Parts: sequence; structure tokens; C-alpha cells
Amino acid sequence: MPEELTLDIESLESAISKQNVPQFTLSSEELHYADLASVFEDLDDQGRSFFTQHINLDRFPNILAELPGSLIEETLERFDKTAQKEILGKLLDDDRADILQDVKAESRPQYLALLQPEEMEATRSLMRYDEDTAGGRMTTQVARLTPQMSVREALDLLKESYDSAESLARIYVVDKDERVVGKLRLRDLAFSTRSATVEQVMQEVDITILATADQEEAAQIFSKYDMTLLPVVNEYGALLGVITHDDILEILEEESTEDIEKMSGIAGEQSEETYLNTTLTTHFRRRFPWLLILALLAIASGYVMLRYENVLNSIFLLALYLPMVVAAGGNTGGQAAAMVIRAMSLGELEEGTTRKVLIKESLLGVMLGLVMGACIAVITILILPLFQPELPLAVSLGQFTIAVSVALAAQITTSTLTGALLPIGARAIKLDPAVVAAPAITTLVDISGMVIYFTAAQAILNIA
Amino acid sequence: MPEELTLDIESLESAISKQNVPQFTLSSEELHYADLASVFEDLDDQGRSFFTQHINLDRFPNILAELPGSLIEETLERFDKTAQKEILGKLLDDDRADILQDVKAESRPQYLALLQPEEMEATRSLMRYDEDTAGGRMTTQVARLTPQMSVREALDLLKESYDSAESLARIYVVDKDERVVGKLRLRDLAFSTRSATVEQVMQEVDITILATADQEEAAQIFSKYDMTLLPVVNEYGALLGVITHDDILEILEEESTEDIEKMSGIAGEQSEETYLNTTLTTHFRRRFPWLLILALLAIASGYVMLRYENVLNSIFLLALYLPMVVAAGGNTGGQAAAMVIRAMSLGELEEGTTRKVLIKESLLGVMLGLVMGACIAVITILILPLFQPELPLAVSLGQFTIAVSVALAAQITTSTLTGALLPIGARAIKLDPAVVAAPAITTLVDISGMVIYFTAAQAILNIA
Repeated sequence: MPEELTLDIESLESAISKQNVPQFTLSSEELHYADLASVFEDLDDQGRSFFTQHINLDRFPNILAELPGSLIEETLERFDKTAQKEILGKLLDDDRADILQDVKAESRPQYLALLQPEEMEATRSLMRYDEDTAGGRMTTQVARLTPQMSVREALDLLKESYDSAESLARIYVVDKDERVVGKLRLRDLAFSTRSATVEQVMQEVDITILATADQEEAAQIFSKYDMTLLPVVNEYGALLGVITHDDILEILEEESTEDIEKMSGIAGEQSEETYLNTTLTTHFRRRFPWLLILALLAIASGYVMLRYENVLNSIFLLALYLPMVVAAGGNTGGQAAAMVIRAMSLGELEEGTTRKVLIKESLLGVMLGLVMGACIAVITILILPLFQPELPLAVSLGQFTIAVSVALAAQITTSTLTGALLPIGARAIKLDPAVVAAPAITTLVDISGMVIYFTAAQAILNIA
Repeated sequence: MPEELTLDIESLESAISKQNVPQFTLSSEELHYADLASVFEDLDDQGRSFFTQHINLDRFPNILAELPGSLIEETLERFDKTAQKEILGKLLDDDRADILQDVKAESRPQYLALLQPEEMEATRSLMRYDEDTAGGRMTTQVARLTPQMSVREALDLLKESYDSAESLARIYVVDKDERVVGKLRLRDLAFSTRSATVEQVMQEVDITILATADQEEAAQIFSKYDMTLLPVVNEYGALLGVITHDDILEILEEESTEDIEKMSGIAGEQSEETYLNTTLTTHFRRRFPWLLILALLAIASGYVMLRYENVLNSIFLLALYLPMVVAAGGNTGGQAAAMVIRAMSLGELEEGTTRKVLIKESLLGVMLGLVMGACIAVITILILPLFQPELPLAVSLGQFTIAVSVALAAQITTSTLTGALLPIGARAIKLDPAVVAAPAITTLVDISGMVIYFTAAQAILNIA
């Protein structure tokens, strides 16, 4: 963070703790709303009261829009009806819809009632879409022109909406059924003959997205085609709004966080609050379920080990390599899963590429398995004798080495394939690929590792 | 992907495989350059030759800019000098610098020599910055005005640069030392009195970034402050260029991919190519090192197990829960590490918050440990007797349950803290927190799990 900003944040925080109104006013006017929001989030109840009492109401809508969902309602309640009306009225329409979605269903009508009829209509229509769809992310504040207008008429119309700063960066041309027929930049009008028609200076719109499409699809299209704005349409092609690049940044951050969390066995919705502001209970609730499920599943590995008591007792030296063989499967499976899941998230693996992925991972599995098996064989033959290992008379060091290396190679080959297959399989049955990832895969390959290892050892014993 | 686009991509691919020039021309004119680039990437040598022979040269610069670094040089070499000159001349300056950075050092001068003196100068100065810094990401194509200009003069000046589409969305006001003093949107000029000065209609610029700053910092500032453009300055505050939102999207995707890959034990630079186009050797090279290191480290766990042969043989039933206790540490440590690493990447954990993180994770570790220990105790007492477990006479089921539960609780508590501590410690000594994550943590807590488990069991045996 740039130096000057940190200093300002500190002076704001000290103003709040000292209840110093003039200093608070000064600092809060200077700071960016994003910084004000993060300071507000970290305050205690008393601090928040002071903040909402003395903050300039013109600045508060932007701050409110930056707060985590769980803080919205209690924060709104700190203001009286008049202030609430002013704040809600000044919010951008997409932020307003998001905020009202964060409020308890029973108090929603009371807030909606504070809005102008037109705003209420726009907000209601935005709230119809799920928060994680293109429609739930769009803003309806778009300048609309018609193809037959002259450039002069268009400029006059736009001048009136100069204030609504949001809409001049996104000028669309729609026909009488509200279908998108073109787009314009302000420069196309400003530098054109005033008598030309909008149709003559507009550009084609190639790419739009359905309001019901998933937000991840919107982000992929946006990022692939280097877009500035993505127009959102209904099933008849009518323009409903646009998704802007700051929404796309948020979507990308959310989706990456989701992938990372799910791959690490963390359950449930990601917290809108920062790591430190998220309560202990929430952290606990998100980590406990998979921890318990995976623990219960791991008993299966233990059961396999229990069944092979005789083999382990015949060659107890097997214990030296047991954790290695088992863990190697988890590691290689986790690598394969991470590569495949990330490629899916970036839209690189469309349906129909499954065969190619499986061929690639099978070859990789075999390569990794053979090289790792060979490495361990060399190490075992060269180094193990120095420690004078205890082997039963009937089993030679060579035989032992072969059993361990073959088991390691087999474990790595199969686990690599399992790691790649599980996310693909999950997607095929419409599950989230990231959910079945790392820890679930580890558990599965732990069991197979035990079986493979002891089977190989048993084979050597049978020969001996 | 929208339906129509898929169809067009197919017709392009069939045109290339049938060497059908008219159909290729038609399809390639219709498609977006991002799609053309991904088709090109998937072609064999013959297909690429056909593509570069028949593609409209006006369209190729944008396609080239989308290609992975490893393809740049061989693709440029498919063109003759005249075509190379045309392509390089039409590239945006930041893309051109990136492309020349992807070319072998010895062939760089020959390409630079094809540029106009002015372009050469700009390209050289951009290439001075590392690819992953703010300077390495910026474009220098910015419109610059001076504060004393009138609005009319400013508009006339901008009209001349109408063609360089990039620069009109970013108009900055600089003083005689090139220091940023303000910014403007085209609308501020278009809708103002022509005789006003630029100074009167411009807005303040609060946030800039140093050219040498890390690209991740640029992305964090951009995303936190909902920016459209981030001005890049040198140490004297002189404007060098701007970072645009499409660069920020790329940075965010890169950084998230990097985190995910490193957390999964995948080494080295991420591939610029898609998962499927990355060669087997590259995949192998990135997965093998950690696989081998972790395997060697896992032998330490095996050594612990080997040392406790007597304990395991006295109560072989311990094998049933051994994998569970060990794995629970890996799972909870992985969860804690993922939360902390992600919070760091999102800029939520500045220096000085370490104590808060440790308190939080210690409490969470204790909570998770106690609840999990209790769950396993209940399950063991209720269910295990049904299987008529074999315990030595001197050890009661109650004692066995206590040993297992206490070990599980201790393992989860310590592993949670280890998982949170390692990334924080890594950052403190300037290592990448994600590198020391999941698999490294798993290995460490595997060893501690073995020690904790067998120590608890030994204690029960000593009592008995």
C-alpha cells in the first residue's frame, strides 16, 4: 500500500478512537471509500456508531457497497429513515440490488418502500437474478440510442445524463424491441459530423451473454476477448444491462478463492469478510465437516493395514517405506487434480477433450512412476545396506527393493490417473470439480496405496 | 462459449485442414482474434504455414499478441522481413515489448531494427522493466495534456490521435516535468465550454504506482480501489504509462494459477500454453522435483514407525487408526495454510497481524482437536466392540480409546498451527508462502503424527 495512504488511515483510526469530530471529517474526506470501508469493518460497536453519526452522507453509499454482506443490515439500521432513503437513493443500481439481497427477507419491503418508483422497479428486476449469474452482476445504467438518431441528437441526449457518470462509458444502440444493434464510444460521436446518423458511426456488437448464464462464464468470455464491457441480454436478445470490468475482477477473485478453498477441503460459501474478521465459529463450521468425513474414510486405510498384520510382521522393514508409497500417491494425484481443475476454471478443457487429458495423464503417470520407482530402487540398494536392515532370511534385499519400487511405480501411475479422472467425472455428473479434489483424492489413493504396497510385499513372501 | 462462435471456429478449422483459401479468408475475417489465436495454437506445422500465408496481415498483430511466449519466435519466422515489419509496427507498444522479450536475445536486435526510431525507443524503454512489474505491464500509449491548454486546444489535439484508439480512454494532465497533475475523461472536454482551461475541468489523481513495483501489488490496488486505469510513474513522479484492466485480469489469473500450482507441489514457472498444449516433458519437469523430495522426506515417517515396532506389535489394533491420525494432521494443516495463503494473496494480512492469526488458529486448532477427539472416542466406544477387537489383556478398550483420541486431538491442534505458521514464516524470510504449503506441510505433520500417536500408545502400555 502506498505510504501516504497508510498515514491517512492511521489518523482516521485515531480520530475515531479519540472521538475527534473535526479530525474525523478531515481524514474521511481525504480517504478513498474502499479504505473507509475497511476501517469501518474493523471497528467495534462504539466506533461504528461514531463513524455513521459523523460521516458525510454523500460518501456513505460507496462505503456501504464495499462492506461484507453480513454487516449490511446492522449498518443500515444505524441510520434514520431519511438518511436511509438518501443512502439507498444514491447507490448504483447493481450495488443497491446486492445490498437489498443481503438484508433479511422480512425487512426488504420496508427498504424498497423508501425508493423512487422507477428505482424500485429497476432494483426488483435486478434482484430476480441469482447473485452469481450474469444478470445478478450487471448494472442497468447504460446509455441507449436508436440507429436513426443524428449525432447531434445523440450528444444532446447524452449531455443530460452527464451526471450519471457510469453510463457514458457504455453507449449502446438498440432497435424498437430493445435488441442490441450496435455500440458507440463517446469519441465516435464527439469527432463526427453532427448530421450523420448513429447507425453510420456505430460499431457491431459480436458478443453478448444471457442474463441467466453463470458468472464464471461471463468472466471467461470477458477475459478471453479482452472486453471492456459485456452486454447482458434476455432470451429475445433485448439489452438488459452490462457487466463492467470491476465486477469481473470480483468474480475472478471469488472463483479462484472458491477453487483454492474447495481443493483444500474447506466447505460451504466463502466468507465475504476478511480472514481476520470472520468469526471463529464460521471458520470452525467450514473446516470441520471434511475433517470428520476424511477421518472416517481414513479408517478404511487402517483396516487394510490391520488385515496385512502378517505381512508387516514378516518383513517389518516394510514400515520404513510404507508412508512414502502411500503419500506419493496423494502428492501426484493432487498435482494432477490441481492442473486439471485449474485448466477447467480457465475454460481450457471443453467437453470432448477428456480422452486427450486421460492419454496425457496416463503417460505422465507411467513416466513419473517409472522414474520414481527407479530412483527409490537405486537409493535402496546403495544406502539401505549401510543401516544393516533386518530382513527375514528367505527375502533378499534385491527382492525387497523390487517389491517397494514396483509398488511405488504402480501407486504413482494409478494415483496420477485418479487425480485427473475424479474432477472430470465430477463435472460430467454436474458436481463441482474442485470439491472432489485434493483431500478426497488423498483418501482414495491412501487406501489403494496400502493395498498395492502390501500386495507387492505378499507376492515377494509367496515367492520366498 | 456462445453457439455461433463454436460453429465459426469449426468452419475455420475445416478450411485449414482442406487448405480452402476462400473459406479460410471468410471465417478468419469473422472470428475474434482471441479465437484465431487459440485455433492457431492447436495447429500442426503445415496448418500454421497455411494460416500465416493466407491471414490478413492487418489482423495478425492482435493474434500474435495472444500467443504463448514459446510460439512467438517460430511464428514470426514464418513471415518475410516486409511482413514482419508491418506486424511489429502495428502492435500496441506493450504487446510489442512482451513479444520481443519472448524472442531469443540474439535475434532481438534484428527485430528491433525493423521498427521506426520512435517505436524502437519506446519498446526499448518498456523492455527495461521485468515482465512481472508494473512497468513491464504498462502501455505508454496515453494522451497527455497540459494544465494551461484550453478545452478547444485539447479537443483538437485529441482528434488527431483518434486513430490510436487506445489512448482516448486515458487522458492525463502533466506538468513540464511530466509529473501527473490530473486526469480527464473525454466527456469532461466534450461537454465543457471550449474556452475553459484543462486545469478547470480536470480531476485529481490520488493513486499511482511505481514502475518497479510488483505486478501483484498493482492488481491489489486496482481491485481494491475499483480503478479503470492505474497510472505508472518513476521515482520522480513522472508519468511513464498506464496499466489497463485487461492486464489486471491477466495478472490475477496468473497469480491465482501460481498459488494453486505451488500449493499442489508443482514447481517452476507456469506454462503460458494451455494444459493440453503443454508438452509431456514440461509437465513431467514441473511435477517430478517435489514428488521426489517429498518421497525422500516421507522416509522419516517410516523411520519413526520402524522405531516403534514394539508398540505396534503389542497393540496391533493401533494400525486401524494410524492412517487416520496422521492424515487428519495433513488435512487440517492444509486447510489452515490455504486460508492464510489466500488471505495474503488478497492483501488481507499485512505485516503485524501475525499475532492475531496465531491466536485465531490456536483457538481453532484446539476446538477442532477437541471436537474431533470426542467424535472418534464416541465412535470407538460404541462401534469398535462389535468387531471384537484384539487388545492385549493389560490394555482396556477405555485406555485404548483415550490414547487414540488424545493423540488425534494433539495432532490436529499442532498441525493447524503448523499449517498457519509455515506460510507466515516463509513470508518473513522473503520466501513465497505458497511454496511451503500443502505437500510440505503434509510431510512435516506426517512425521509429528507418527511421533504423537506412538508416544500416546507407549504411555498407555507403560501404565498397563
